[in-house]
Amino acid sequence: MGSVFGNKVKISIFGESHGPAIGVVIDGLPAGEKIDLDEVYRQMQRRAPGGDKTSTPRKEADMPEILSGILGDTLTGAPLCAVIRNTNTRSGDYGNILNAPRPAHSDYAAYLRYGGNNDIRGGGHFSGRLTANIVFAGAVCRQILKRKGVDIAAHIYSIGEVNDTPFEPTGIDAELIERLNGEKFALVDRAKEEEMRSAVSAAHEKGDSIGGVVECIVQGFPAGIGEPMFGGVENIISAAVFGVPAVKGIEFGSGFAGSKLWGSRNNDEFYFDENGQVRTRTNNHGGALGGITSGMPIIFRAAVKPTPSISCEQNTVDLQTKENTKLSIKGRHDPCIVPRAVSVIEAAAAVALMNML
Amino acid sequence: MGSVFGNKVKISIFGESHGPAIGVVIDGLPAGEKIDLDEVYRQMQRRAPGGDKTSTPRKEADMPEILSGILGDTLTGAPLCAVIRNTNTRSGDYGNILNAPRPAHSDYAAYLRYGGNNDIRGGGHFSGRLTANIVFAGAVCRQILKRKGVDIAAHIYSIGEVNDTPFEPTGIDAELIERLNGEKFALVDRAKEEEMRSAVSAAHEKGDSIGGVVECIVQGFPAGIGEPMFGGVENIISAAVFGVPAVKGIEFGSGFAGSKLWGSRNNDEFYFDENGQVRTRTNNHGGALGGITSGMPIIFRAAVKPTPSISCEQNTVDLQTKENTKLSIKGRHDPCIVPRAVSVIEAAAAVALMNML
Amino acid sequence: MGSVFGNKVKISIFGESHGPAIGVVIDGLPAGEKIDLDEVYRQMQRRAPGGDKTSTPRKEADMPEILSGILGDTLTGAPLCAVIRNTNTRSGDYGNILNAPRPAHSDYAAYLRYGGNNDIRGGGHFSGRLTANIVFAGAVCRQILKRKGVDIAAHIYSIGEVNDTPFEPTGIDAELIERLNGEKFALVDRAKEEEMRSAVSAAHEKGDSIGGVVECIVQGFPAGIGEPMFGGVENIISAAVFGVPAVKGIEFGSGFAGSKLWGSRNNDEFYFDENGQVRTRTNNHGGALGGITSGMPIIFRAAVKPTPSISCEQNTVDLQTKENTKLSIKGRHDPCIVPRAVSVIEAAAAVALMNML
Amino acid sequence: MGSVFGNKVKISIFGESHGPAIGVVIDGLPAGEKIDLDEVYRQMQRRAPGGDKTSTPRKEADMPEILSGILGDTLTGAPLCAVIRNTNTRSGDYGNILNAPRPAHSDYAAYLRYGGNNDIRGGGHFSGRLTANIVFAGAVCRQILKRKGVDIAAHIYSIGEVNDTPFEPTGIDAELIERLNGEKFALVDRAKEEEMRSAVSAAHEKGDSIGGVVECIVQGFPAGIGEPMFGGVENIISAAVFGVPAVKGIEFGSGFAGSKLWGSRNNDEFYFDENGQVRTRTNNHGGALGGITSGMPIIFRAAVKPTPSISCEQNTVDLQTKENTKLSIKGRHDPCIVPRAVSVIEAAAAVALMNML
Repeated sequence: MGSVFGNKVKISIFGESHGPAIGVVIDGLPAGEKIDLDEVYRQMQRRAPGGDKTSTPRKEADMPEILSGILGDTLTGAPLCAVIRNTNTRSGDYGNILNAPRPAHSDYAAYLRYGGNNDIRGGGHFSGRLTANIVFAGAVCRQILKRKGVDIAAHIYSIGEVNDTPFEPTGIDAELIERLNGEKFALVDRAKEEEMRSAVSAAHEKGDSIGGVVECIVQGFPAGIGEPMFGGVENIISAAVFGVPAVKGIEFGSGFAGSKLWGSRNNDEFYFDENGQVRTRTNNHGGALGGITSGMPIIFRAAVKPTPSISCEQNTVDLQTKENTKLSIKGRHDPCIVPRAVSVIEAAAAVALMNML
Repeated sequence: MGSVFGNKVKISIFGESHGPAIGVVIDGLPAGEKIDLDEVYRQMQRRAPGGDKTSTPRKEADMPEILSGILGDTLTGAPLCAVIRNTNTRSGDYGNILNAPRPAHSDYAAYLRYGGNNDIRGGGHFSGRLTANIVFAGAVCRQILKRKGVDIAAHIYSIGEVNDTPFEPTGIDAELIERLNGEKFALVDRAKEEEMRSAVSAAHEKGDSIGGVVECIVQGFPAGIGEPMFGGVENIISAAVFGVPAVKGIEFGSGFAGSKLWGSRNNDEFYFDENGQVRTRTNNHGGALGGITSGMPIIFRAAVKPTPSISCEQNTVDLQTKENTKLSIKGRHDPCIVPRAVSVIEAAAAVALMNML
Repeated sequence: MGSVFGNKVKISIFGESHGPAIGVVIDGLPAGEKIDLDEVYRQMQRRAPGGDKTSTPRKEADMPEILSGILGDTLTGAPLCAVIRNTNTRSGDYGNILNAPRPAHSDYAAYLRYGGNNDIRGGGHFSGRLTANIVFAGAVCRQILKRKGVDIAAHIYSIGEVNDTPFEPTGIDAELIERLNGEKFALVDRAKEEEMRSAVSAAHEKGDSIGGVVECIVQGFPAGIGEPMFGGVENIISAAVFGVPAVKGIEFGSGFAGSKLWGSRNNDEFYFDENGQVRTRTNNHGGALGGITSGMPIIFRAAVKPTPSISCEQNTVDLQTKENTKLSIKGRHDPCIVPRAVSVIEAAAAVALMNML
Repeated sequence: MGSVFGNKVKISIFGESHGPAIGVVIDGLPAGEKIDLDEVYRQMQRRAPGGDKTSTPRKEADMPEILSGILGDTLTGAPLCAVIRNTNTRSGDYGNILNAPRPAHSDYAAYLRYGGNNDIRGGGHFSGRLTANIVFAGAVCRQILKRKGVDIAAHIYSIGEVNDTPFEPTGIDAELIERLNGEKFALVDRAKEEEMRSAVSAAHEKGDSIGGVVECIVQGFPAGIGEPMFGGVENIISAAVFGVPAVKGIEFGSGFAGSKLWGSRNNDEFYFDENGQVRTRTNNHGGALGGITSGMPIIFRAAVKPTPSISCEQNTVDLQTKENTKLSIKGRHDPCIVPRAVSVIEAAAAVALMNML
């Protein structure tokens, strides 16, 4: 486990925020598939900070160098390795957290786990920056899935108390998918952007942060895929999506809301559509029955906690002096990672699904 | 994957509802641990139907036979295999579903997955009965964990719209843990039982079913355990808990509610307690930071969908005639599996945690 | 790892020689395949002791009960579990080995590994009897492989210094395969049986045992299967075959002998055969190049050490008194397991190959 | 599987001979261990071609750049990634093999496996150059093992028909281990070097190559480690060692020779040594009983086939014209990789053993 995921298509992620580079090795990709690297970089730009007034000012080129696995524009079948150099790392910013773990960060848990040997600068291996690797891997997988008719899209379901229009669970149209796949602040209802940005700004002005929910839909994935019990759609997607730092919950279909319903309301009735295809009229099951795909869209929502990095003073402990202390994290921080998490969660789902085909 | 889970302690579950038997092999248990089989059976009785007016009338002895791995009362280190014979299987009940998949059941997805070769009687390998194996495995693991100071308890957080008192996230007392571990209808606030049973009865009277949420807490698990990214507490517990049929969502700590908050509200501040132990004043992180245990209780909630089996007439398809049809499932069904799911979810968590130590 | 093997088709083996039963769960078999259980039992009889003057007198029915995974004669897709009851277990025979580990047995290593908690009677989980489960799993896999055109056969390559005629590395004919698949004392050259049995008897008369080599060939396995480095044919077959107790070496193609050659001699030249098929004139590579199948037969040999169980007095230690002591193992023992190992090694190869398709 | 190995300490190897770089990610190394990178490079130099008149003239710096996982000289616990740039790649040399697969190389099998999309230049991902990554990973693991008292050493057991003095199976002294660990042409009996080099030269002069056997010993590895059946010492070491291209056989302890013996001769008798330690007088079991370490040295031999690359004209096929053809591989080739394989096999064993602790 650790920073390795997958069975058929295995990704192994490495790197620390302030080390020389981060990167990912993807083992098991099918030879012969053409990969549009420009499109991969476009997906990576959706995650990258900067270019957006509400995100962290650290500019990252995030331009991966491909070390192996692609010849020309085609997968060779050998493991694909991409490396992204770290530049613009301002180590000085983090000096004051060496002894005083930041609340809600991995600092304290990592300190225990690694006996204080982990590279704490910028969060080290726990930095959100590492998710660039997930987006890279996911963007490659998505091109292969797309060729098989599988589309993945996600949007900002909510930021704080502000909600976007949810996806239609029985399916969304191709135009919306394409639009969302290109957006850095992905919304079904673009009119909600202003209200959401206001919610972010309100937190930002106080040096605070705000969380949200990302909703993701997968369309065109074949029916009858998955295994019972521990090899189901939900198990595998959740195992990947919880790999995205800050995700603290996931639900499929009607999820937690469905648990409040009666069966007659939550059960999705089957019917033959005009093409003789079995479908369900509703999609409370979120595309998975008994862990196996039903042919309906796979739909899930992931809860993203507010970024732990805030400027307000917080109570914490000093691990050296063994005394309670206070901490203020200097520098500007991304007050809301939810927009950027959209592309990471899509990518995690793509990697998970590649392991089910 | 499939019906196999785990890395250090691997469980392999087998059986079909109306075949000769179900069972589980547990590989990797530590030799020398004493196992109180009576206590294991007590845990299995908490899951077993019957003995409760609101559950399915099928009586199951659920008494496992141990085929290997225990000598006297001690684990030998060889794989532990337990087999539970199927008796009282009334195949006649299920004749009408062979062609007409039951809405929200695995029938249709399994039909696609297995080309119609799966044993559809009683749901076959997808039957809720298979969860007896998870409880068996979990009950064995819990005794080992208990000896290391780890306690696991769960309760019915809600059924429909009726809520129990939630767990205190920073920890519950030993007395409550012990009481809950013995209850078949586990509640923090026993006064809520009547209202919950009424909610179940209301659905039952209409031939309908109702869902709910199970909340689970793990105390005493060591701090500093877990891996970043894909080997974290959330990844491993969710991979196990989604192995429980009917679970459609999971959240850790403040989960979805936390995603609505500002960071200053959701961040858990650290302090040294009177024993010089680092703790957090709140537990919105649910015991895991960066996937690694913080030493605070691990707390999660799982959404359990309403049982798909309902007596009311439902629309479905006839896979033979290729026409839309209607289906009524005869026989009495368990209108609410949430009380029984409590013991299964605890057990799944126990198996997951044994794989992290 | 432990008693679990496989990635796509996972087997989980359980049982101890003198416990209630042994058995195996096979997860991931393809639904819809018909299994001839009589043929499975025939393969198991090839391994079973008895019915042969040179093997151990313990009679084992070795008749498995199928608990799940087959309906009628067809795989349902659910895990297949087979259980074989232990009968005729004479625990009294083994009393004298509790403190004095038998040389070359697992006794001492297992004592350390399991802190003395393992069931030492009959070797417990380390008993050769457990290989019945491998034969069961392999016999099921072989029927599926056979339907895909894959044949597996093995013979006694040598016992002591007596050699059978080796397989023709570029392929053997169907008639020989069929004959060997039915033999309990499998030889290419039946005329060698007498000499081999004499070699066994010579050891047996002195209360001693003798080892040998098993050669196995796989024909019809598709070309282009396997992964570089750690996912190659050799890695996967050897990982399975070393699961057969007493195997201490394995070589593919020209193996150790090939290491003495010059490249011009050991390299296998390619040519197009009359059907336009690429083949090699020799088969020193044993069917695998870079870990990937070449389309030529996969051929390997496994070294089987002489059975450790001998009647002669041997020096050992007394773990209680901490003094050197002597040990005589009473009872009659199988002086040569090589004939029976043939079916187990074929089966292990079958399970390995099912995981590569 | 593929280019990923391990369970506790996972290595993921990437790169192609003529791509930008090769490298390895090692996930799961223990934080806090100090790593002497100079010593790592020294081990890598033992494998590197050049600096020796009998090896390939391609000069490789083989100097890895560490991208993550080490801060100063200490493991941080994050995945360790090392990248080695490819320079001095003369693609022109390989033009004539694009259609005509080289006998005994992976060319043809890889062509089938990857549909002709693999990078054939220099063997692509199948190049022996990739073993530099194994040496890197092994050299890191060896330092950690060394600190736990585990020593690994190997020597050229034979080249062609010329044999070195075998290791004393019950153990070799520290001085010999240290000497061998520093040698590029590792021999117990240095006097054999001349004869071995003559054997290599004899083949080289004819444009031919020659194979050999590497013997490896592991001392100080704790007793009682390993799992029965598929998790044993032999399974795990062989699964790693067959990851070294050109290895076609492996045997533990007395191996194939032992299979010719009687039990009374092959069984290793136990005794208490002067320190009250249980040992065996001989070590035919090679340190593993029932897959579990006995405390005696682990000893194995691996058969290394003669390098397929030879200058002599060979018959092969033209995959384009579908006709038989002839092939001469130009350029100078390493006529004997056995000396260099010593360090790779040691390293593979080290990685395997790190996964057993």
